[in-house]
Amino acid sequence: MSNFLWFKKIFYSVFHIRRQREITFIMINIGIAGYGNLGKACERIAAQSNIFEVKGIFTRRNPSEVVSPLFGTPVYAQSEICDFEGEIDVVCICTGSAHDVTDLGKSLARRFNTVDSFDTHAEMRGYVSEMNRIATQNDRLCFVGIGWDPGLFSLMRALFCGVLPDGDTQTFWGRGVSQGHSEAIRRIDGVANAKQYTVPKEEAIRLAGEGKAASLCDRDRHMRECYVVAKDGADREAIREKIVTMPNYFAPYDTTVTFVSEEEFEKNHSTMAHGGFVMRSGEANGTRHNLEFSLRLDSNPDFTASVLMAYAAANARLYESGLRGAKTVLDVPVSALFDGCYCDIVKKFV
Amino acid sequence: MSNFLWFKKIFYSVFHIRRQREITFIMINIGIAGYGNLGKACERIAAQSNIFEVKGIFTRRNPSEVVSPLFGTPVYAQSEICDFEGEIDVVCICTGSAHDVTDLGKSLARRFNTVDSFDTHAEMRGYVSEMNRIATQNDRLCFVGIGWDPGLFSLMRALFCGVLPDGDTQTFWGRGVSQGHSEAIRRIDGVANAKQYTVPKEEAIRLAGEGKAASLCDRDRHMRECYVVAKDGADREAIREKIVTMPNYFAPYDTTVTFVSEEEFEKNHSTMAHGGFVMRSGEANGTRHNLEFSLRLDSNPDFTASVLMAYAAANARLYESGLRGAKTVLDVPVSALFDGCYCDIVKKFV
Repeated sequence: MSNFLWFKKIFYSVFHIRRQREITFIMINIGIAGYGNLGKACERIAAQSNIFEVKGIFTRRNPSEVVSPLFGTPVYAQSEICDFEGEIDVVCICTGSAHDVTDLGKSLARRFNTVDSFDTHAEMRGYVSEMNRIATQNDRLCFVGIGWDPGLFSLMRALFCGVLPDGDTQTFWGRGVSQGHSEAIRRIDGVANAKQYTVPKEEAIRLAGEGKAASLCDRDRHMRECYVVAKDGADREAIREKIVTMPNYFAPYDTTVTFVSEEEFEKNHSTMAHGGFVMRSGEANGTRHNLEFSLRLDSNPDFTASVLMAYAAANARLYESGLRGAKTVLDVPVSALFDGCYCDIVKKFV
Repeated sequence: MSNFLWFKKIFYSVFHIRRQREITFIMINIGIAGYGNLGKACERIAAQSNIFEVKGIFTRRNPSEVVSPLFGTPVYAQSEICDFEGEIDVVCICTGSAHDVTDLGKSLARRFNTVDSFDTHAEMRGYVSEMNRIATQNDRLCFVGIGWDPGLFSLMRALFCGVLPDGDTQTFWGRGVSQGHSEAIRRIDGVANAKQYTVPKEEAIRLAGEGKAASLCDRDRHMRECYVVAKDGADREAIREKIVTMPNYFAPYDTTVTFVSEEEFEKNHSTMAHGGFVMRSGEANGTRHNLEFSLRLDSNPDFTASVLMAYAAANARLYESGLRGAKTVLDVPVSALFDGCYCDIVKKFV
């Protein structure tokens, strides 16, 4: 255990009376399932905060080969998490692929409260419904699709439509790396490495600001920039052709393919920056109004982790107050993101 | 009663089963207290929607002198509203000055659910606290400070701080008319009419985007542009001096005063456009992130009314589900802005 963790333990033991909401310092015990970029960011944010204690990291790898270098958090096999029933307030699901998230989510919701950043929009409705059934049956509270999209962008799309029902909302992503599209390129024969940037088109953003973007197609809204490291002797023209004609992923877009060396790739394309906009233009009582929410993120996993931890704390608070089932950002009042006196929160923010 | 209202009555009577949440078409009976720009906009938005029925306009003027020209809504004296206890689901408080709002709010909260756009930030905490006491004692649900600031901007300030605790938030208003500052100029001897525009400074916006605006003073953030119609023979230099040296209102700002004719004033300064930004720049896990929410509104009262009506509907839904007391936007989950199947809402927005 690191010195930092000891300091936290000693300092907060003075104030630490769990499950008494009138005390500002309530330690929320969390588990982190999955220890990639997102899990590591969650661990660090939690370890440096006043309100979380990380009870363990739960990995599918051999736990003896995984170390928490900065905070000395104990590492366990994922299967061992069941032993922590009753000791962990919220499990943060930080595994990689979408199906890992849903499988683990549905399994954990029988014993734990969870937050996850499941991000397959097309399957969200089904996943929420299934998670709600499991969580309700097992007296649990599970937050689904927490992050920035889905997550904050979802909240904005709903809020904007709610307060300005007569209008059109557009979401733009980027400039930033799409993991799914990068992975699709890396699976092509002859490709050693690849990054794909999603880039919103200026003209589409302009039209969205005027409420005139509803009829735009995918090609009009975003373009796709691919940076590819080819293996020695690979047929670059064949790779380019396979990328730009790939159905769903690239064919519906203006796609550029740039071949770069491994050195240039490492130097210029290791960014995890991302961002985007949600815009709504509409009318109320005959006059026009524009709402816009934008994000510029230096690191996608760091910000996603920050959102996830904020909602993990809200989960613990709302569970205490009796909320059960599967919920999305749309169900969580923003006041639940804070501890302390409600009057102070009103004074500070309203 | 206008034809439009009859049509609504006949059409919705088919579906209209009040207080059964599984029916999408639930008519919410509202009263509108105050019939200025905001009240008129609320009436029109409600009358043209599927979910509201306006039971009456309640005015402090002589009701026989007030007409609802477009929708034929019945007009009553404000004192008559007590006769509607049990018939009105939510009263929208649309009176003018801040003290009119609080006086009426505290009076109505004994008998009705209310939404208001009380906007004196410095008194918000006390007003929420007092309204909460009254509403709780009388089994009512009252939404306080609903609009865009306070309102959506409050929500963003809290959300941004919640998801990115280590950072700095800045709010900018404008370019738009400040009613309070315009009124302060109109009270000066020799002034026939005046409008004051609040204008955010570009340099301050730039610094806020870099998280470096925390130490800026009022003068650094906004400037004040005043357009004044002087009475015949008035001493313009004296008026200018009185404006730019006025404590609190103008002295702490760079203020410009431009004298214009009554004709030019009518032609160029009758706008009710407004807007602004909430920006947060901060760090999570060592990387920097920027969040921004912006509004461009062609009409301040029209958009405020649109927000007020969205939260009036949410008030009726949350009252049905058992919520009581005084609440702000921070307490209202965005899902409450919608009727209908939750799964469809998730599919559409998340």
